[in-house]
Amino acid sequence: MYNIGIDLGGTNIVAAVVDDGYNILGKAKTPTATPRSAQDIFDDIAKVCREAMDAAGVTVGDISCIGMGTPGTVNGEGVIEFANNLGFNNVPAKEMLKERLGDLPVFVENDANCAALGEAHAGCGNGSGNFVAVTLGTGVGSGVIIDGKIVNGVNFAGGEFGHMVISVDGEPCTCGRKGCWEAYASATALIRQTKKAMEENPDSVMHEIVKQEGKINGKTAFDAMRKGDIAGIKVVNNYIKYVACGLINIVNALQPEIICVGGGICNEGDTLLKPLNRYVMAERYSIHSKIQTKIMKAQLGNNAGVIGAALLGSI
Amino acid sequence: MYNIGIDLGGTNIVAAVVDDGYNILGKAKTPTATPRSAQDIFDDIAKVCREAMDAAGVTVGDISCIGMGTPGTVNGEGVIEFANNLGFNNVPAKEMLKERLGDLPVFVENDANCAALGEAHAGCGNGSGNFVAVTLGTGVGSGVIIDGKIVNGVNFAGGEFGHMVISVDGEPCTCGRKGCWEAYASATALIRQTKKAMEENPDSVMHEIVKQEGKINGKTAFDAMRKGDIAGIKVVNNYIKYVACGLINIVNALQPEIICVGGGICNEGDTLLKPLNRYVMAERYSIHSKIQTKIMKAQLGNNAGVIGAALLGSI
Repeated sequence: MYNIGIDLGGTNIVAAVVDDGYNILGKAKTPTATPRSAQDIFDDIAKVCREAMDAAGVTVGDISCIGMGTPGTVNGEGVIEFANNLGFNNVPAKEMLKERLGDLPVFVENDANCAALGEAHAGCGNGSGNFVAVTLGTGVGSGVIIDGKIVNGVNFAGGEFGHMVISVDGEPCTCGRKGCWEAYASATALIRQTKKAMEENPDSVMHEIVKQEGKINGKTAFDAMRKGDIAGIKVVNNYIKYVACGLINIVNALQPEIICVGGGICNEGDTLLKPLNRYVMAERYSIHSKIQTKIMKAQLGNNAGVIGAALLGSI
Repeated sequence: MYNIGIDLGGTNIVAAVVDDGYNILGKAKTPTATPRSAQDIFDDIAKVCREAMDAAGVTVGDISCIGMGTPGTVNGEGVIEFANNLGFNNVPAKEMLKERLGDLPVFVENDANCAALGEAHAGCGNGSGNFVAVTLGTGVGSGVIIDGKIVNGVNFAGGEFGHMVISVDGEPCTCGRKGCWEAYASATALIRQTKKAMEENPDSVMHEIVKQEGKINGKTAFDAMRKGDIAGIKVVNNYIKYVACGLINIVNALQPEIICVGGGICNEGDTLLKPLNRYVMAERYSIHSKIQTKIMKAQLGNNAGVIGAALLGSI
């Protein structure tokens, strides 16, 4: 038997047929093409699921259950209460999937939580039941797993470590607070920090790099650092300090077995991961404990979402 | 049947006999009198337990189990791995209690976690399974309960929200980090903030209050505020902002049903609780959720520890 995992994103809808060994047997994708009605979007979700089954060479009779990850808040009845970037308000996702795909067990969860579940079981977590996944992207997403279960709190909105203030009265955040971790540790924040350093350092090699690449991105400062550029080194060191600050806060709060760090910036690999682990070792409150939280790089990339969604029925 | 709860503190050892309705039937206490050997301290713990049983009019045959809360890190085998203020390193607490009190089931936990458990079941939590207890004292202690279980992580050192940085490169904390919540929201921090405001405002009524009371304490600025003193109002407003900052971080991370706030400063009651709830309502990430975390005042005072310890065997 197989499960279907769906990753409903602001840009694309992806569905995959996943087996017991977490292998993707077939996958399909279509643009989400917002703004449009939930009815239309769910019609396309069902279509993509059928395409994924075709690609995998299975039929709906071979499927045990369907799981879907979505942006926003999903309640215990599988209703998407609110998802800003989809324009969704109280969309009965579970019901709408059942209507289109038959009376299979259906599970709906927040997408960051699905990705965390995927990495915990099939990625760098290797089955770990105490696990936090952090994604350094446009924002800073996070998913928390304790005792093998997703922690989403009394209102299904939990797990938002990105919106933990690390600098009182600091940089404004999209959420309305000031000084959130997201406003310092996201790729967006790194680009802002890079821009500011370029303005302050007209001789920095970053100007050259940006001319060649056509735009500032999350790699600019790292590339400059590799060329020995002092301004680039400072941007990278500061950025890593901010990322570490939030990670150590998570360590002190929950002492998970593993914190998995994902997002495009993680392509820097050990350049990022090694100093992060050094910071954690130096600043953790659990300095006297032999066992320490490991900071690891996410392994599943964009597949974490569909694999995690496919796992929702099995946890 | 009854349970014994022990609260081993840096200052006092307290033991209580607790019934199924969380009532304390008998209680006894002796100074911890550190520094002295673990053997001597555990001899006194056993003595205090016997005195509590005498006070309750029960014998060891009436006792179902024994629970103890202690400062520091306690591992799964009931060994206190490290407790700075007791001078303990790898003290086999469970074994030492069994040696002295007979072969009853024995459970040992961190004291902040015991207090959280006590408040969750017998105090303001009213049985809540998703609950965080925060104590604003000399430091900022916290205990986290998710799905009815204490969260202490992979190395039993979790639940330390006090050592979450809320101000990167901010005030030095006793833990070695800079800018921890504890360094802004503890009673110690409030006293430091009050002192600074007094130095900057020689005309503040706080000087008079301190002369009358003999020393600066956590009430000084609140008392000045009640007299309309501008400097006092500013200290209180800032302090409440710092406390709220950490509470909202916890809300965004875990969305517990209740965050219980304890410690001497909570005697201010609604003066503290009302603005804290307003901050949470305004800044929570879960702005679209109908259900919101409630910020409540701790109800059990110093009894939270012994009641929570007595409950360790029942969860």
